[in-house]
Amino acid sequence: MEVVLIGSGNIATHLGLALKAKGVTISQVYSRSAQNAKVLAEKLDTSFITDISDIYRNADIYIYALTDSAFKSILRKIVMPEGIQVHTAGCIAMNEFEGFTSKFGVFYPLQTFSINKPVDFSQIPICIEACNMDVQQKLLELAKLISVTTYLVNSENRKKLHLAAVFACNFTNYMYNIASDILNDSGFSFEIIQPLIAETAEKVKTLNPYDAQTGPAVRMDEKTISKHLSLLNKKPDLKKIYKLLTKNIYNRHKKK
Amino acid sequence: MEVVLIGSGNIATHLGLALKAKGVTISQVYSRSAQNAKVLAEKLDTSFITDISDIYRNADIYIYALTDSAFKSILRKIVMPEGIQVHTAGCIAMNEFEGFTSKFGVFYPLQTFSINKPVDFSQIPICIEACNMDVQQKLLELAKLISVTTYLVNSENRKKLHLAAVFACNFTNYMYNIASDILNDSGFSFEIIQPLIAETAEKVKTLNPYDAQTGPAVRMDEKTISKHLSLLNKKPDLKKIYKLLTKNIYNRHKKK
Repeated sequence: MEVVLIGSGNIATHLGLALKAKGVTISQVYSRSAQNAKVLAEKLDTSFITDISDIYRNADIYIYALTDSAFKSILRKIVMPEGIQVHTAGCIAMNEFEGFTSKFGVFYPLQTFSINKPVDFSQIPICIEACNMDVQQKLLELAKLISVTTYLVNSENRKKLHLAAVFACNFTNYMYNIASDILNDSGFSFEIIQPLIAETAEKVKTLNPYDAQTGPAVRMDEKTISKHLSLLNKKPDLKKIYKLLTKNIYNRHKKK
Repeated sequence: MEVVLIGSGNIATHLGLALKAKGVTISQVYSRSAQNAKVLAEKLDTSFITDISDIYRNADIYIYALTDSAFKSILRKIVMPEGIQVHTAGCIAMNEFEGFTSKFGVFYPLQTFSINKPVDFSQIPICIEACNMDVQQKLLELAKLISVTTYLVNSENRKKLHLAAVFACNFTNYMYNIASDILNDSGFSFEIIQPLIAETAEKVKTLNPYDAQTGPAVRMDEKTISKHLSLLNKKPDLKKIYKLLTKNIYNRHKKK
C-alpha cells in the first residue's frame, strides 16, 4: 500500500510513523513549509514537495492532515490523483471532498499528539467514514493495520466526538497548566501533583465521572471555596474560571 | 502505634486501610453517623463511637478527617486526649488546633479518594506540618510507613497546593463529566474517549502542560470553534465554559 501525506504537523508525523512501522510505503510528504516537510520526510525515509502540483499521482491513499483553512485552500489548488482521498480532522465534514473526487472518506484518530512524544497507535480509536463500501473497506484495512479499535462514525457524530475530546483533553490539559502555574508561583515543582493527575484519569476507568467527582464544589464546602477565591484575588481570569466551574459542579450534583 | 480516626469518609477510609495494612493499630473510629462509623469500623476490625465524649484516650495519634465545618464543631466539643492531634485537610490552617492542645499538626495526603476505588498509598505525597520537632518526627515516621514521598509544607503553601489540586483533579474530572454527557447524548460509550484521557494525563509526565497544549483554542482555529459552539446552542452553561476556557487558552499562548 502506498500513501501520500499532505501536512507535516503532529497528526501527519505520528500517523506516518505508525504506518511506516507496519510496512506501508509513505511515497511522499507535502507541506507548505520546506523545513517542516524535510524534517518529516527524513523521519519517514521519503521525499517531500512544497508545491502541490508536484504531487505523486500513483498512491493508493492520500491523507490530508491539515487545519480546516489549510485543507480548504489545498482543495482549491490540487489536481486530484486517482487514489482515495481522506482527511484526519474531527470537525470537517466528509462531503467537503464532494465535487473534487469520487473516492473519499475520513480517517480520524481520536488522540492528542505532540511532536516529540511517542504514542502507542495500537490503542487509539480510529474513526472511519467513507463515500462508498469499497473505500470503507480500504480504510478499515489501513486502520486495522495500526490499531485494534476502529469505529464507523458519520460526520455529524464525529463533530460531537471532537467536541467531547476538547473537554476531555484540551481543556483538561489547560487545568493542568493552571495547576502548574499555581505550583510554580508557590515554589513547588509540578511533580508533586503528578500522582493526583494520574489517579484522576485512572479513576474514570472504573467509576463514571459523575460518581468520581470530589472536592469542595461537590460538597459545597463554602469555607474552602472562599479561601481559594481569596488566593485568586490577583488573578481575575482564574477566579472567573474557578467560580464558573464550581457553580456548574454544584448545580450538576444538587439536581440528583 | 495506636491511631484513632475521627471521621468516616473517603480519606478516613483509605488512610485507615493503608495504616492498618502496615501494622498500625486503629483503636477506634468516630463518626456522627452510626451507619458510616460501623461500616468503617468493620473494615478496620475495630470499634466505633458516635459520641465524641466516649473517645479512647490512650492513642498516640488522633486523625481528624473531616470537612471544615465538622472539624470546627468537633473542636468545640472534644476534651482532647494526650496524644498528637492532626487533621488531613488541604485548606484548614494548622493553628486551628491552638488553645485546644499542645501537640498538633497536619497530615495531608495529596490525592483524590472515592470510597470504593482502591488506591496505592505508597505513591501518594504526604504533606506534613507540625507544631514542634517532636511531633514532626512522629508524623514523618507515620507518613513513611505508608508512602515513599513526604513533604514538609506550611499552612499557607498547603492551601495553594490544595487550590492547584482543585484544578488538576476536581475541575479535570468535571471536564471528563461534560465529555461523558456529550458522548452519551450522541450514543457513544465513554470508553471511546478513555485512551485520550489516559494519554492527556500521561503526556504531562514528560512535557510541561504549556507545551502539551493542543486543540482548536491554541491554534485559534475559529471555524472549528464556531462549529463546536453551535453544537452547544441548547446548553448555555457548557457554551459559557467552552468560550471562557478557549479565550483563556488563546490568551495564554499568544502572549509567548
